[in-house]
Amino acid sequence: MRMRKKKWAEPFLEEHQDYALNDPGQYQGKWCELLHTEEIHLELGMGKGDYLLRMAEMYPEFGWIGVEKDRNAAAVAARKAVDAGLDKFPNTRMIVGNAEEIGNWFAEKEVDVIHLNFSDPWPKKYTHKRRLSNERFLQLYDRILKDSGQIIMKTDNQDLFESSILYFTEFGFRITEFSVDFRRKEHPEDAITEYEQRFMDIGQPIYRVIVVKSEK
Amino acid sequence: MRMRKKKWAEPFLEEHQDYALNDPGQYQGKWCELLHTEEIHLELGMGKGDYLLRMAEMYPEFGWIGVEKDRNAAAVAARKAVDAGLDKFPNTRMIVGNAEEIGNWFAEKEVDVIHLNFSDPWPKKYTHKRRLSNERFLQLYDRILKDSGQIIMKTDNQDLFESSILYFTEFGFRITEFSVDFRRKEHPEDAITEYEQRFMDIGQPIYRVIVVKSEK
Repeated sequence: MRMRKKKWAEPFLEEHQDYALNDPGQYQGKWCELLHTEEIHLELGMGKGDYLLRMAEMYPEFGWIGVEKDRNAAAVAARKAVDAGLDKFPNTRMIVGNAEEIGNWFAEKEVDVIHLNFSDPWPKKYTHKRRLSNERFLQLYDRILKDSGQIIMKTDNQDLFESSILYFTEFGFRITEFSVDFRRKEHPEDAITEYEQRFMDIGQPIYRVIVVKSEK
Repeated sequence: MRMRKKKWAEPFLEEHQDYALNDPGQYQGKWCELLHTEEIHLELGMGKGDYLLRMAEMYPEFGWIGVEKDRNAAAVAARKAVDAGLDKFPNTRMIVGNAEEIGNWFAEKEVDVIHLNFSDPWPKKYTHKRRLSNERFLQLYDRILKDSGQIIMKTDNQDLFESSILYFTEFGFRITEFSVDFRRKEHPEDAITEYEQRFMDIGQPIYRVIVVKSEK
């Protein structure tokens, strides 16, 4: 989601580049050490960061890293953490950059879980390869995920969900959880963002799938 | 779906036992010969037979066999074919019996496509093994399906659909088509029954998946 330009964003990102990282490659292979955790969760396309920060509060034992290429959105997300107090979020970092580069940021088998929340559906066929669940990205995920690593995807978009099921299974990821209306039951283990709440309010079902790297 | 008992049903089935077969095992390995086709489509739980008969009209080049264990429903289905004229449906037969026995009715690799339409969801956990997409049945299907054989499943039931996706993929069937709202686009290639239309009328999405036997 592209946001209107915010004047304060660039100076803010400049000031907080230890938290909203421009050069995450320096931590490749060292994220657990940096975040003092043994499990790394990575959200690609974190938007304004609500999911990431709520999950980081709910699961302080995990490391949470959010990636956002829109610099304004990333600045909004980072400001939420800064305003709340970075000491409240020692187990998180944000990366201002393009998910295509994750191979330069994470070592092989460094990541436990990749979260894809309401990713851009890129509806036109010639743009499908930009979808974060597209085979082009699955190759990158396959490399940085642990053997038992998971991808957890939530979306309101039917076309994206339908295609993604095919992308995942064709690539060889194995479906372990699957829902065509995730919020019809309570899921207190999973943060609901404003964005998601809006879909729920209009009765739009939330689709969700969890896949794991298959044993090879 | 259990129907009210119909007095005419038993005499009718008795009279038309060449069409609504009690003893389908006699044709094991010979269905193509019987129906003068090269491709066998099998619908399990055909109910009142609307889907089967419409598809048989739309695809006269295929053989269509409907299975129904409820004798009243099977009689209603058979009467539709008889009333329309059995010469109109030379490429069809019905089987009055329990799908658990398909291994006795069809030879190994004799069937091209298995159709599961709005099957009983058996919601209670201890009844899940009666679901037509349960592993217990997948073992039977795996045996009678050709190597490139398909299962096409449609349902309005979220729980059944969600579970079935896991049943299929865990068993090793590969998803080739997948829809969480099949009727949002036109699908003139697929018959809509009254039963399905009722769900569409109340805005209930129709879930659909096609899986194939994976290469082994």
